Amino acid sequence: MPAYMLCLTYDGTAYHGFQIQANAPTVQLCLEQALAVLYGSTIRVEAAGRTDAGVHARGQVVNFSAPTLVPESRLPLALNGLLPEDIVVVGARQVEEDFSARRDAWAKVYAYTIDNGPFPDVLQRRYAWHVARPLDLASMQKAAACLRGRHDFRAFQAAGSCVKTTVRTLYSLKLIGRRQFIYLIFKGDGFLYKMVRNITGTLVEVGLGRLDPAVVGDILRQGCRGPAGATAPARGLCLEKVIF
Amino acid sequence: MPAYMLCLTYDGTAYHGFQIQANAPTVQLCLEQALAVLYGSTIRVEAAGRTDAGVHARGQVVNFSAPTLVPESRLPLALNGLLPEDIVVVGARQVEEDFSARRDAWAKVYAYTIDNGPFPDVLQRRYAWHVARPLDLASMQKAAACLRGRHDFRAFQAAGSCVKTTVRTLYSLKLIGRRQFIYLIFKGDGFLYKMVRNITGTLVEVGLGRLDPAVVGDILRQGCRGPAGATAPARGLCLEKVIF
Repeated sequence: MPAYMLCLTYDGTAYHGFQIQANAPTVQLCLEQALAVLYGSTIRVEAAGRTDAGVHARGQVVNFSAPTLVPESRLPLALNGLLPEDIVVVGARQVEEDFSARRDAWAKVYAYTIDNGPFPDVLQRRYAWHVARPLDLASMQKAAACLRGRHDFRAFQAAGSCVKTTVRTLYSLKLIGRRQFIYLIFKGDGFLYKMVRNITGTLVEVGLGRLDPAVVGDILRQGCRGPAGATAPARGLCLEKVIF
Repeated sequence: MPAYMLCLTYDGTAYHGFQIQANAPTVQLCLEQALAVLYGSTIRVEAAGRTDAGVHARGQVVNFSAPTLVPESRLPLALNGLLPEDIVVVGARQVEEDFSARRDAWAKVYAYTIDNGPFPDVLQRRYAWHVARPLDLASMQKAAACLRGRHDFRAFQAAGSCVKTTVRTLYSLKLIGRRQFIYLIFKGDGFLYKMVRNITGTLVEVGLGRLDPAVVGDILRQGCRGPAGATAPARGLCLEKVIF
């Protein structure tokens, strides 16, 4: 059977994450239900990154195998007609049968949006973390500098995670201030569970002046986050792009 | 009693417009309920512009009179604690007792957002009108040029409206294309009922090539919109600013 990849965008607000689970709406469930209607048979998808509950995507990628019923150019419109309005397929193409969105991705880009205005931007409230106290972007940037590159990031993984290795490469981490927003753009070869949100929470502590920028390097080296830096809320996070 | 003005932002998605009406949630109702809790008495507000059902605001202005209980600097936080999260007070100050947000405004700025991507931007779906077919921005700009200035805009008011005069001054009308979006920025001394959305609908017809740009001038002169240009949906419209 031919294999396809889809580029997918979604508003994660209403979903318990990407991955299928019992008794909860997930993006994967909606997508597989739409594929089942379209193809008349069960189709399983695999995603490049399993986004958590409440996390959004502008560039999730999934792959699946299906009979040659629908030309790739027609797939987005056909699926969008079957999907809820907070999930939109924006691209599709046929791929090699051994293509895997998860394994073949060499980098992913996540963006975290902080709303640093004195009052929240009401039209961005689902897509940003509102931090009312002013953040010092310069010290956040100083702290971010020591996170770039290949490191053992176990200090920033969620407690109780279990993976073979906690070494990851953060190709870049840019902090951009624009109007009342601060955007943190992470590009890496892979991310530990809640790593982006834990780094963001820690950088916000730095921005608030509660944590010295140099301490972030110590946290990374010691492999222990300690009391600093809570996990930033899911709604500010968006999977922007998967690079193959 | 001292008089105050508030600068108000809201996501209009859940509301039947600004103005109080029977058996429907409105922004005015929420605001007056919050003021009643704060002051312990009934407080009526007057708004600069009564936005329709589903229309948003980044810069609505209201005025009211109230006892000297809460200093103006504390009003936004006090009210935001009582308001739902889709209504946010972003500023407050004491004003002259005869100040009227409605009468004293000499200009209002409305922005209409069109999402012209082949697929809708899922994170902007509540705040933009998705038009999938490509729009010709140059011809829309040509058509917009003849609308600027002081004209009788009755061709663009909603059917059944009843106002003393339908002459308004459109100080400026800018069309800005950025990524997949087209922003129409209207600045005028006043707007007839549904005027912005009717002009937008007509300019979209021009952008789609269904209406010649020159015909928009004819429509304005003849005072009759005819079959061209449906009313653009409410969700793309936002009251950006009121100028005093």
